[in-house]
Amino acid sequence: MAAHIYDQHLDKNAANYAPLTPLTFLDRAAAVYPRRAAVIHGDRTYGYREFDERCRRLAGALVKAGVGPGDTVAVLAPNIPATLEAHYGVPMLGAVLNAMNIRLDAATIGFCLAHGEAKVFIVDREFAEVARKAVAQVERKPIVVAIDDPVAQYPAGTPDLGAIEYEDFIAGGDPGFRWRPPRDEWHAITLNYTSGTTGNPKGVVYHHRGAYLNALGDVLAFGLSSRAVYLWTLPMFHCNGWSYTWAVTAAAGTHVCLRRVDPALIYPMIKRHEVTHLCGAPIVLNLLVNAPESVKVPFDRTVEVMTGGAAPPGAVIEAMERSGFRVTHAYGLTETYGPNTLCAWQTEWQELPLVERTKMMARQGVRYLTSEDVMVADPDTMQERPFDGASMGEVMLRGNTVMKGYLKNPSASEAAFRGGWFHSGDLAVRHPDGYIEVKDRSKDIIISGGENISSLEVEEVLYRHPKVLEAAVVARPDPRWGETPCAFVTPKSDAGGLTADEIIAWCRDNLARFKVPRTVVFGPLPKTSTGKIQKFVLREQANALDG
Amino acid sequence: MAAHIYDQHLDKNAANYAPLTPLTFLDRAAAVYPRRAAVIHGDRTYGYREFDERCRRLAGALVKAGVGPGDTVAVLAPNIPATLEAHYGVPMLGAVLNAMNIRLDAATIGFCLAHGEAKVFIVDREFAEVARKAVAQVERKPIVVAIDDPVAQYPAGTPDLGAIEYEDFIAGGDPGFRWRPPRDEWHAITLNYTSGTTGNPKGVVYHHRGAYLNALGDVLAFGLSSRAVYLWTLPMFHCNGWSYTWAVTAAAGTHVCLRRVDPALIYPMIKRHEVTHLCGAPIVLNLLVNAPESVKVPFDRTVEVMTGGAAPPGAVIEAMERSGFRVTHAYGLTETYGPNTLCAWQTEWQELPLVERTKMMARQGVRYLTSEDVMVADPDTMQERPFDGASMGEVMLRGNTVMKGYLKNPSASEAAFRGGWFHSGDLAVRHPDGYIEVKDRSKDIIISGGENISSLEVEEVLYRHPKVLEAAVVARPDPRWGETPCAFVTPKSDAGGLTADEIIAWCRDNLARFKVPRTVVFGPLPKTSTGKIQKFVLREQANALDG
Repeated sequence: MAAHIYDQHLDKNAANYAPLTPLTFLDRAAAVYPRRAAVIHGDRTYGYREFDERCRRLAGALVKAGVGPGDTVAVLAPNIPATLEAHYGVPMLGAVLNAMNIRLDAATIGFCLAHGEAKVFIVDREFAEVARKAVAQVERKPIVVAIDDPVAQYPAGTPDLGAIEYEDFIAGGDPGFRWRPPRDEWHAITLNYTSGTTGNPKGVVYHHRGAYLNALGDVLAFGLSSRAVYLWTLPMFHCNGWSYTWAVTAAAGTHVCLRRVDPALIYPMIKRHEVTHLCGAPIVLNLLVNAPESVKVPFDRTVEVMTGGAAPPGAVIEAMERSGFRVTHAYGLTETYGPNTLCAWQTEWQELPLVERTKMMARQGVRYLTSEDVMVADPDTMQERPFDGASMGEVMLRGNTVMKGYLKNPSASEAAFRGGWFHSGDLAVRHPDGYIEVKDRSKDIIISGGENISSLEVEEVLYRHPKVLEAAVVARPDPRWGETPCAFVTPKSDAGGLTADEIIAWCRDNLARFKVPRTVVFGPLPKTSTGKIQKFVLREQANALDG
Repeated sequence: MAAHIYDQHLDKNAANYAPLTPLTFLDRAAAVYPRRAAVIHGDRTYGYREFDERCRRLAGALVKAGVGPGDTVAVLAPNIPATLEAHYGVPMLGAVLNAMNIRLDAATIGFCLAHGEAKVFIVDREFAEVARKAVAQVERKPIVVAIDDPVAQYPAGTPDLGAIEYEDFIAGGDPGFRWRPPRDEWHAITLNYTSGTTGNPKGVVYHHRGAYLNALGDVLAFGLSSRAVYLWTLPMFHCNGWSYTWAVTAAAGTHVCLRRVDPALIYPMIKRHEVTHLCGAPIVLNLLVNAPESVKVPFDRTVEVMTGGAAPPGAVIEAMERSGFRVTHAYGLTETYGPNTLCAWQTEWQELPLVERTKMMARQGVRYLTSEDVMVADPDTMQERPFDGASMGEVMLRGNTVMKGYLKNPSASEAAFRGGWFHSGDLAVRHPDGYIEVKDRSKDIIISGGENISSLEVEEVLYRHPKVLEAAVVARPDPRWGETPCAFVTPKSDAGGLTADEIIAWCRDNLARFKVPRTVVFGPLPKTSTGKIQKFVLREQANALDG
């Protein structure tokens, strides 16, 4: 085939091509809104110019410390300015940020440091003890930088890491450090370890192109503008804060830092800083609506909330609305930069009865504008399932906001990308309107007497019980049925004597008979640092239950 | 240098990489909002599913007609559904759309058809005569498709092109036509001829990546959401409607078609369709605010207006605000997909006196979020000019929303991209806040007694005169001063006897002496189809003036 006229003398050059990178968001915000509040932490607020200069200082200081392109810089810290700054300062020099889950144990942190080959390890003093142990087990020691956060109230006796303090470290960097975009937008920007329930964590690698695009997708999905004030209730180490570490800067909004998810801190901050947006797993929403009335400082605006990580129970959406929040449900995984689908609002839902409406809103929805495609398919044949709201298949995602792959793990990458789609491991149906609804993780489905039971469906019913604070349902081995549903329930503090019979009766009224839990266990639920209930722990407990 | 860990086994594949293309916007809108109003034309409204199907039909019909990837399809039509559909249907098969200026003469249209090697030529019957003449002069005849628009009121005797009608043509295409994204996002998507004032028009080539990104930039700059109702007062053939042909679909808003920019049509449509956004050159804004009161149907919302192509005079911004519009000023060129800078609003401007505020708003501003960079520099040395509001330089732009280049014109492309920046040909200053302000086209500057006079500055003063409807200032040769300013003025219809002396006295009160026009000519101003005043015509008139 002859070359077309459009293929001739129309090549890329410095004027018409630039690699996509979220670093340009900061550059622009600093130029256009130099004094607008970029970061609020405790009583301190600083503008976009200062934020930009601090990130450049960090980049310069890291270069001085010997960090180069393609090297890893690990951070173990809560949602504080240093963590946010690392999202810019580290990639400014072509290095890769590994923001670590602050709930990890020393052995896992040590594994990640070694696997990611971290050259520098920036640690908030709160985690000094675990960090010290982790570093001790790593052969090639990273340079440690210690954050002494004035907003933190470290308990007496918090160990000193004997390392350079973060402020002193970045003071050695040039505020005018001249960064260059990556030569290739496919260049790695961050490394995020998945908290796998078995085996070693896998290192998910993001690139500049994907971070840029998912951040724009966030801005559009969540309606961020330069008037946005974003409260950091979602961990920045969780998919880089679902890409909001970059998205809020793209919008030139304000980042409000927060060391700890605590309603007694959050409500006053919403009022004081005029917060407009926040994100969190449903468990965080639950925490907010069930907070004691005494801490619920009223605020006079609707706060937009994006939730994900698990479907928000209808009762939680409803309670949030009553408290002045508007909930948007998004869905994604660590492998997809956080959110990749969105339960896009349809105006006609406004007419629906509350229960119907919250059911609609609890679905995982449709693809983000910046995502390429989503499909519910048979994972073996890759055949798409019908849009009938009943046929179960695996959620598959595709596009520029799917990870580069797993670090040093080509076989896991290959398995994840089988057939040209990212396999999420989540089981879902697709409704006639094209919205997907996740029914369960592949491994969370309960098979009782040959019938599939969605643990989420049973949990949804449990959450609607007025005395239930939290609930989780897992399979319990059963000699006759194979498996039966086993419910773990945390009653509300004012629930009085909630009994197993009461729970079972409630489920009989609201569920098909075979889906009703045979066993009910009361008590607090084990959770990950991001608020996800650890079903594998519950499964072990269910296995160990006596007859 | 050894390969980094991040360069190993982390390659692109079908799951994690997709070429960026605005075609995905339509695909998503059709899937998520199938019944939401996509296009309104006359009394007909159709939803996103139907819009998508019509575009697929067009693609399928073009394939049947022998059009293939890299071929050109030309359209000569006003802002009607067919023009919009061509923005999707043509690239769906990998072909390139050339949306032509409907004011062009037959010779120029013929030149463009031949130069762009158009295989198909879609023509609204309104332009049948000029199209027939144009085709007659082209050696390799394109297939002609004739649009018989039911909304048009063609005058009796409008010739028939003897060609297949557009609806019949697309009826032959498959509504389920399966398009594929371009193999490479750098693939051409559209061809736009610049209406050069001398010589043959140059063919500006856009690619899928740039169209995708500038459309997102538009959505963010103009605050489009799925509730947006966009009235097509800006020609779709002008930089593909400043990329709004794609942006409105990205937001899943509503496109309201409009055959003719006429306030007597526009005001009732704003009210009837609850229009939220529209774009236009300042001349269109002027037309709206100076419309007879009888056609100004009141509407009860603020309509967002983006203007560009020339700086909006402060008096026009002010009058627009009084009429219920809010004006945002953007700047760009055909070579930059339309807008590439934006006069981003700063909250503190709200405090400024009206004249100061509109002065701020009339500046061309700062780069779009999706643009890489803007600079005001010496075009020879490429040295950036100081941010002092006084030092003049050429506006240079850089990034993914700069054209691929000029079709079949490598030397023009090379000149335009000299030094790694796109040279705009516009002269500007940069203010201490980083905002650029265009002072003139390089060729429009007036040099009098060795002093530079910005024709825009003089025009701004003229527009503030209560009896002036429109004004333009050009250089007139002068034996003593080299050049002097010559003002062309259109008085308002109710202005009564406006005299040259009155104009000159007004300018003396508001300008430095040497900037005051020596000559004032009254009458209507010659304009391009996009409402730009044709200064080259005025310059010829000024040259020809007696003594």
